[in-house]
Amino acid sequence: MTSSAFKASLIRQFGSPAVVIDLDVVEANIARVQAACDAAGVANRPHIKTHKSPLIAAMQRDAGARGITCQKLGEAEVMAAGGIDDILISYNILGEDKVARLGGLLRGTLVTVAADNPVTIAGLPKAGEIAGRPLPVVVECDTGRKRAGVETPGEAIALARQIAASPHLAFAGLLMYPPEDRWPQTQAFVDEVRAALRADGLELKIVSTGGTPNMANLGQLKGATEHRAGTYIFNDRMMMACGQATLADCALQVYATVVSRAAPERGILDSGSKTLTADPGGGLDGYGYIIEHPQARIHKFAEEHGFLDLAACNERPGVGDIVRIIPNHVCVVCNMVDRYVAVRGETIIGEIPVAARGRLS
Amino acid sequence: MTSSAFKASLIRQFGSPAVVIDLDVVEANIARVQAACDAAGVANRPHIKTHKSPLIAAMQRDAGARGITCQKLGEAEVMAAGGIDDILISYNILGEDKVARLGGLLRGTLVTVAADNPVTIAGLPKAGEIAGRPLPVVVECDTGRKRAGVETPGEAIALARQIAASPHLAFAGLLMYPPEDRWPQTQAFVDEVRAALRADGLELKIVSTGGTPNMANLGQLKGATEHRAGTYIFNDRMMMACGQATLADCALQVYATVVSRAAPERGILDSGSKTLTADPGGGLDGYGYIIEHPQARIHKFAEEHGFLDLAACNERPGVGDIVRIIPNHVCVVCNMVDRYVAVRGETIIGEIPVAARGRLS
Repeated sequence: MTSSAFKASLIRQFGSPAVVIDLDVVEANIARVQAACDAAGVANRPHIKTHKSPLIAAMQRDAGARGITCQKLGEAEVMAAGGIDDILISYNILGEDKVARLGGLLRGTLVTVAADNPVTIAGLPKAGEIAGRPLPVVVECDTGRKRAGVETPGEAIALARQIAASPHLAFAGLLMYPPEDRWPQTQAFVDEVRAALRADGLELKIVSTGGTPNMANLGQLKGATEHRAGTYIFNDRMMMACGQATLADCALQVYATVVSRAAPERGILDSGSKTLTADPGGGLDGYGYIIEHPQARIHKFAEEHGFLDLAACNERPGVGDIVRIIPNHVCVVCNMVDRYVAVRGETIIGEIPVAARGRLS
Repeated sequence: MTSSAFKASLIRQFGSPAVVIDLDVVEANIARVQAACDAAGVANRPHIKTHKSPLIAAMQRDAGARGITCQKLGEAEVMAAGGIDDILISYNILGEDKVARLGGLLRGTLVTVAADNPVTIAGLPKAGEIAGRPLPVVVECDTGRKRAGVETPGEAIALARQIAASPHLAFAGLLMYPPEDRWPQTQAFVDEVRAALRADGLELKIVSTGGTPNMANLGQLKGATEHRAGTYIFNDRMMMACGQATLADCALQVYATVVSRAAPERGILDSGSKTLTADPGGGLDGYGYIIEHPQARIHKFAEEHGFLDLAACNERPGVGDIVRIIPNHVCVVCNMVDRYVAVRGETIIGEIPVAARGRLS
């Protein structure tokens, strides 16, 4: 249990609210997921969209990660500048400006991109041309989640052939984020594509699966070569809800102060939608779990106010009390701040920049 | 109608997505609200939490605003450093660290703060002591919205007396954000406090009302001295929904690119919850209004994906198309970016830093 004296000391030094990560917990999370990937025989390619920090990416790499995943070109540029090599951008890169930047990045860094349509693929060769080496491209497939990705093996096969036939591109394999309950369908999808492309002499060097919730399903897809998990680095209420984390695995906590207690059953925190975000966490009750007052509900936000329903609380916090919140969705909370306060237990280590935050494109 | 060539040129220069403000529309919004305040005989004290830019605050001041409102001490510090004087922080400032910062700010800037409880007030005198002049404090009152503020005139009177009796503090009046449908109750609240305090020799120098939606109600509260509106500077879908803005009054647009069209009735934008935010806009349908495709619904987000339901669209956007989005809630979108792209019609002016973003405390 974190002491009141420590919380007060941290807030005196860094202000309230503060977004705090415990590096001991971060390291334990890194080790656990790396061990699970090793045991399943798939490479670990963590998604850095959660933490956006080259320092933390380097911790993941040094623990055995094969490379990293980024969701934006700007994230990849920051990671490469921070010394991270072997970057997969799991996103359609479109537009002359971005393709030119991608070419510049590819000159000095092994970078692979995803595509799910012919327009994206038609634009990518320029990047390989600029770099003077082929750009590896994986085809993004959707096996039921209805997000990015082609919906049928036939479309995936056609795009793979388009990539293979393009100058300055190299077909690298498939990328997907399989729904937790559709592994047989996902297997059939991959197998059909693999068989058809084999006849063309095209190999699936990469078969990339994703998601921290899917950590429970590592090994379900025969032929998967790597897995992209992101949220596990810090965890959050969603990961607790899906059984992928306990409270002890939650490395990130928002330290906040109670600033108002206008009525016996109401309170207000200095953390609103500009800190915790309005992310509903896929249907969770309220907007965060308050460690000191688990029965309190953060039921509504203003931009700098988190409105507390204290009706179910036996002990109610007073004005000036500091509490710690596990957010619904940690990836979007990290995106709100320029730096984390890093601690180990009750020792303050310093600040870690969220270096890739603010890179909109 | 913005031309495709202009949109493409802007994206080539600044990347996609881009958060774009039209300064012609900003100036028109400033002029309209200033004129409405002038006509109602109340001072205009715009809330800068929406734009977080000292440059834009200076435009508001130069058009006649009395001063500005901030929601955080960090915002006030950035505004003061940017040359803005007469700042109201409509927030309980708590904690030794913040009170010391407040004292430093008060040395060189006229700053007034709000308080709604005795704990906050007990901590504030140190700020006046540090500054060497009294800190003006207004009592925050809640006349039905159930946010910050005391719920009864009796509590407001008691806090006013506490302020007046505190060394280094000066009682300055009342602050509230009246519900749109409770003006008689708000009037009764203010009148009761005014009468009781008059007997103590205490005056309500400031009676501050708030909210862009309440622009329609200027003049409803007899004795109001000033109004704090924020969102009007840019406007958004919420302001259109409540009748305070038309599409032509929306100065901020998110330029985004269609990056995937995985099925005939589905599409994906490169703007997800890390750009547009998951703010539901008080119950609006979807997460933004797409100017080029009003029938398209942004029905769901991933962090960097906005999922489009195109079922109702006659003309559907293709991969690579650039569209412009009016967000649900502009104040939280501004908080996601480090700079705006400023335009006047189809002329690009440059970038304006969101200087107070990232000041968590």
